[in-house]
Parts: sequence; C-alpha cells; structure tokens
Amino acid sequence: MNIPETNLPRIVIIGGGFGGLNLAKSLKNTEAQVVLIDKHNYHTFQPLLYQVATAGLEPDSIAYPIRKIFKKQKNFFFRVAEVQNIQTNNNILETTIGNLEYDHLVIATGSKSNYFGNDVIERLSMPMKFVPQALNLRSLILQNFEAALLTNDLEERKSLMNYVIVGGGPTGTELAGALAELKRHVLPKDYPDLDLRQMNIHIIEAAPRVLAAMSPEASSKALKFLKKMGVNVWLDTMVKDYDGDLIKTSNKDLNSKTLIWAAGVQGSSPIGISSDIIKGGRIKTDEYNKAIGYNNIYAIGDVALMESEENPKGYPMVAQPAIQQGKNLAKNFKRSFKNQKLKPFVYKDLGSMATIGRNLAVADLPKIKLQGFIAWLIWMFVHLMALVGFRNKVIALFNWVWGYLRYDKGVRLIIRPYKRATKEQEEEVLS
Amino acid sequence: MNIPETNLPRIVIIGGGFGGLNLAKSLKNTEAQVVLIDKHNYHTFQPLLYQVATAGLEPDSIAYPIRKIFKKQKNFFFRVAEVQNIQTNNNILETTIGNLEYDHLVIATGSKSNYFGNDVIERLSMPMKFVPQALNLRSLILQNFEAALLTNDLEERKSLMNYVIVGGGPTGTELAGALAELKRHVLPKDYPDLDLRQMNIHIIEAAPRVLAAMSPEASSKALKFLKKMGVNVWLDTMVKDYDGDLIKTSNKDLNSKTLIWAAGVQGSSPIGISSDIIKGGRIKTDEYNKAIGYNNIYAIGDVALMESEENPKGYPMVAQPAIQQGKNLAKNFKRSFKNQKLKPFVYKDLGSMATIGRNLAVADLPKIKLQGFIAWLIWMFVHLMALVGFRNKVIALFNWVWGYLRYDKGVRLIIRPYKRATKEQEEEVLS
Repeated sequence: MNIPETNLPRIVIIGGGFGGLNLAKSLKNTEAQVVLIDKHNYHTFQPLLYQVATAGLEPDSIAYPIRKIFKKQKNFFFRVAEVQNIQTNNNILETTIGNLEYDHLVIATGSKSNYFGNDVIERLSMPMKFVPQALNLRSLILQNFEAALLTNDLEERKSLMNYVIVGGGPTGTELAGALAELKRHVLPKDYPDLDLRQMNIHIIEAAPRVLAAMSPEASSKALKFLKKMGVNVWLDTMVKDYDGDLIKTSNKDLNSKTLIWAAGVQGSSPIGISSDIIKGGRIKTDEYNKAIGYNNIYAIGDVALMESEENPKGYPMVAQPAIQQGKNLAKNFKRSFKNQKLKPFVYKDLGSMATIGRNLAVADLPKIKLQGFIAWLIWMFVHLMALVGFRNKVIALFNWVWGYLRYDKGVRLIIRPYKRATKEQEEEVLS
Repeated sequence: MNIPETNLPRIVIIGGGFGGLNLAKSLKNTEAQVVLIDKHNYHTFQPLLYQVATAGLEPDSIAYPIRKIFKKQKNFFFRVAEVQNIQTNNNILETTIGNLEYDHLVIATGSKSNYFGNDVIERLSMPMKFVPQALNLRSLILQNFEAALLTNDLEERKSLMNYVIVGGGPTGTELAGALAELKRHVLPKDYPDLDLRQMNIHIIEAAPRVLAAMSPEASSKALKFLKKMGVNVWLDTMVKDYDGDLIKTSNKDLNSKTLIWAAGVQGSSPIGISSDIIKGGRIKTDEYNKAIGYNNIYAIGDVALMESEENPKGYPMVAQPAIQQGKNLAKNFKRSFKNQKLKPFVYKDLGSMATIGRNLAVADLPKIKLQGFIAWLIWMFVHLMALVGFRNKVIALFNWVWGYLRYDKGVRLIIRPYKRATKEQEEEVLS
C-alpha cells in the first residue's frame, strides 16, 4: 500500500464521510500518522444527493476531492480502496490494494440501504446513497419520460410517469418535493405532448407521520406542504412486493416503473468485527467511541451504536453525531498521547430540518420550531455553509438562485443511460 | 415513434450537433414539421470536451438539454434514438424506436474517430468525441495517479504517469496543455509522494507541424508554447503499434498506459446511403447540401463532403461549416416552400484558434493573426459566447476565473471508475 513506515502511532480511518473527514481534519498537527481509506476519491455531501438525482445540481457541487481537502496536512495519507477484512488480533487491515498495519483503527463506514431482507425490492428499486446512484436515478427519470412519449398504452405511460418513494424521512420528502417541482415547472415545457396530470408522486411511510424523527409540528406541516404540491402520502402503509411495475402495499396497490428506496438504513460494519457487538449493522461502542471489547478499534457516525440513557437505540444516523464524534475522538487521541484523561462524547443536538419545495421547509431548531419561508431560508443557508469549499458553495448557490428565478432545473442530462440489471445478472450478484 | 401526422412537409434531422441544432432552430416558424433524432438527449459543445476530461468543467457546462433549447418551438419534435437504416426508396427512416416517414431527410451525424483500420489501437486507446468518453478519460487519469502511488516498480509508475496523445490538431494540443497544467499546478499538491518529473506528456503528429490546419505562425508559436509548458512534441512521426503499455512509433518508442486518440476523424454516415457517394465516411453533396443522386436527402457539417474549387477535399470538419450549412439549408427549405430560387452555400471563414495554457493561445482571425495573451482572451470570449444558455456561460466562466486565480482544476472526481474492456469483450464488439 506504500504508506511510509513511521515511529508515530498510525491511526487508520475507514471512510471519508462526515465522521472520518472531521476526525482526520481534527488530527492535523497531531503526533500521529493518519491514513484514510475510502472507496471513492471524494467526500459526498449526502443531504443534497436528491438534487443531483432531480437535475438540480451536478456532482461537483456536492462531492469534494479528498486529496484537495487535505493537501496541506502533513502526516496524512489517502488511498482509494475497499476494505475486505480486519485481522483484529494482528492489527492488520486487509484491503483491495494490500494489507496495512494499524495502531488505532477507526471505523467510519457509515450506513447502507436496508431492504429488510427483500431481495426482489433490492434488485428492482433505486437506492440513493452514493453519487453514481443519484445519477442513475436522474437518467432513469428522464429516460422514463422519453419512453412515455413512445407508448400509446395509457397504463404503461402512467406507470412510466409515476414515482413511488418508500420512506417519508428527510430523503423521501425532499425527493418527493423536488419531483413535484419537476412536474409542475419543468417537465410540461420539455414534454408538451404528455399530459402531466398523469404523473403521480407517492410516498409510502410505515409510520403514522412523515419526518417521524422530527417534531409533530414539523411532521404535520410537512404533510400539508407535500399535499399542497400534489404529492400523495400513504401513512401507516407497508410495501409488500414489487415486480418492476406493480407495487403491492398494505393499503393500496400502485403502478410504477420507478420505486425509489429511501425507507431504511443499516450500519455498514466491515468484516472482522465480532458479531457479538454488532446490531443492525452498527458496532456497539462505549461513550468514547471505542468498540466494546477492543482496545484500539473505534466506530463513529452512522456505523457506531453508542447506547445512552437519552438514546437507548444510539444516536440518529445523520450528519451531526458523526461530525461531533469525529471531532471528539480526535481530541481524545490527542489527550491519550499526552496521557490526559479522556472525555466522553456529549451530543449537542443542533436540530434538524427538511425542505419540501420553493419557500417550503420545516426546521426544528434547539430554541424554536419554524415552518415555511423562514425555515426554507435557514435550510438553504445551513446547507450552503456546510458544503466543502468556496467553489462548491458558489456553484450550488448560483444553481439555486437561477433555478428559483427561472423555475428551472438545468441539468436534465442523460449522460449514462441507466440499464436495470437483468434477473440473471442480479441473481449472480445476490447468490 | 408517436410523431403526430401532419399535412405539412416533414423534415427529419439526424443529429443534434452544431449542424442539426442550427438547422432546427432556423426552421422556427416555418411551415414544416421538424423532427430531430439524436442518441443523446443533449447537445455537446465538443470544443470544450477536453476540459471535462482534465477536471476543469462538469458536463453540464458544455452539454445542453435539447428539449430545453426548443421548448418554445412549435412543430418541433425530438426523440432519443439511434438510426439503423434509411430506406431511401420508401422515404423511411429505421431507428431503435421504430420507423418514421420523411419528406426531407437531413443527415447531420457528424464524425467519429478514425483509427485507420488499427483494431488494437481502437480497443486500447481513449477517444474523446462524446461526454461519457471525456468522463472516462478523467477517471482514468486520476485512477492512474492513485495506482502510481501503489507501485514500487519505477517503469510501471512512469508508464502510469505518462500521457501520449496521438494527433497535434486543436484537440491534441489543447488536451496536452491542460495535462501540463495539471502536472505543474494541481497534481503536485494532490500527490506530494510522487515525483511529478516522472510525468511526461507527449504529442505524436504525423505532419511536420502541430495545428497543421492553421497558419505557419500559429503552428510555430503553438509548438513553442507546448515546449515551454514541458510537452514533448514528436513531429513527422507515425504511431505503429500499441500493446497497452509500449507505443511503437516511426521515431521513438514510448511507454504509457494511456494513449489518447485525437489523430483523425472520418464522417459518420448512416447505413442506407449509396456507397457511390461516400468517401471517408462523408456524403458527397452539391452546393445546396443535397446528397448527390438523391432528391430529398441532405448532409450538413462534418458528414457532408461538399467539394469546391477552394476546398477540393470538402470544408474542414469543425463547427463553423456545420453551423453555416445548417442555417443556409434552413433558408433554402423556406425558399423552396415559397418556390423561390435556392442559394448555394458560401463558406465564411471566421478563422480558427486553439488555447495551449494560461495566457497562451493562437488565433488566425480573418484580418489578423494573434498569439499569446490577447489570443487567449479572444479564445475565452469566443468559446464562452458560443456555449448554449446563460446558465452554462456563468458556470463555465466562474470555473475558469476560479481555476485561473487558484491555479486549480476543481472537478477531480472519479465518479465512475474506468474499466478497460477485456480483449474478449472487445473481440465480441469488433467481430
């Protein structure tokens, strides 16, 4: 792997998401060698992936080259690789580009879609956790409309124009809102021959409310906004089956060629960690993010399950706990190198928010709950500031202002047409 | 294909490049039904593809959704499809989405890479005619550097860091210049562990000068600029063979994992046109762009071979003849509908230009030849103005200004890793 030998302790971080990135940045000027491994050469700002999928932004607005972030950081090394196994007894990480010894190993591998064991839905639905998946969804949406033009079979056309999103969390509601804006403002101009009333957007949510992790006020207002924008929301409803066209639910059957899976996530723990401490794919840790039963292995962010009195099921799998745990763990590394006492992780809840459409957002802030235009402004400001790099901020802001003024989403490009894997190909993968 | 029946004459245009686009736009408010077919849903501004390949721009700056361009144009229909055959006797176009009858057929299919019959080079080299190919090249360049970090074999590393461009035309020289800027300003920060002196950029040109279609002054100055930037230029040199690592030329053998093919183009004429009038893939036309021997079939742009006294080999295969032929043909359609006399095509040479690097460009304008900073400013202005849409102009300009001030190219993202097709896969395709 060609990482230089060193007398300093070597901290290996798996994953360049919010947790791993903030940990590595906070280890700047530390007496340690920091090695970051990720399967992509960029950090993804996942909260805005839905805008890549709905032709609002190109990947370069929300993805940032990892080498660029760390170009001035000495003792930092980055490698593009996938982890294959962890030899916890020998302190060795096995990857697709060779083995690496570690003194400390930090697992920051995030989460992956949870299909609850339904292989058919896994094969036929569209996930949206990574940039290539968001681009696939963008291509598919546009391909569907091109195909809808070609058919005279009304049921077929409706199925092509319908979008069913499973999951009414932030990803599902934001995506539904963006699709509703495409329907109202963009697609009628692009496809004057299609009757856009035949396009229907559905959210299927198992819980009795959307945005179930937010306040009841936010949920009810978000539901109102969604309905106002023409989104059909099916609460207390479970998806049962899908055959690529017909979606069977516990409530009503729907026809759609496009089932978008935003329903559940599970931790994405790597192979080699004792299954005794893994629950829902997450690694149980103590309050210092140290994996239970290990001396030099840590987990942060989505993949960490830090059970506490306030959060018996662990912290929410969103950006803030990952960022804060990354920073706290960095401080604890520094403390331990100086033989100082470690500080347990204390979560500072900065609130949460979701945007549904133009001027329509909901925000649960620490001191106030807001809905509507002000919440929408705050959402934009917070997300803009959170993007890495001035260049990305300017390009995202320009696209937003332009899109807002022109009622437009400019990136309607099918660069790589999406081809659903055939059953045979997928059976090979899944077997 | 679901194009509405009409009593108006139906003009079918194959290809949404410079020629097809300008023809269709100029047919606005004409008493005709215009149908445009393209395999992509966007128009590509090919002169800037090299900036997508070298991490300077994202596709959305140089690609523009075709539906967006024509959203206000009545009697215009667009379909994403590939042409399979033309039944010239029956006036029927066969495509991947069905057949279409035409009254007039305009072939604007442009050009494709010419490998001069060398299948191995076709399989192992990187072309750069379309957006996905430019993205593949971007991925490969970045992947090569990630791989160079991992090897201790110096020859292997050099081969990964070397870039050999075949062809010293505008594409080859502009790409070489952009790679030289990556080498000088960007890659040393991203890869402090690599000795960038081991990165070599070569241009192999069969003619005795680069930019052979431009003036001798432009050629000699461009050569000087290239050398100043550290590009090795091999003139009067032919590529003979390539095995994925060793490039054999008539002059010197070079090692490189990346052979970029910018050497030759040929017309991309569709199946169904009589081979009697096809030469180098181009369709021979009269001075009205009508294909020789046909009554209602036309060819414009790169795919048209309009032989004239000044241009016995046809007009140069660049943007301007395509744009001007598209506009002239549109006027002639209008004239013919009014039974007016047609006007033959008269080419207005607006000059040509190429940019090598920061502040370094060459321009042969109708009244003056410029090299250096002023030529570079003119190059930027002309290319910016030629981009479709205000949004694209702003985003490209911002990226240029930002990159200029920061000596940076921001889009260093490996979104889809490039995988060279195996010999078996390619043999299937080529057989």
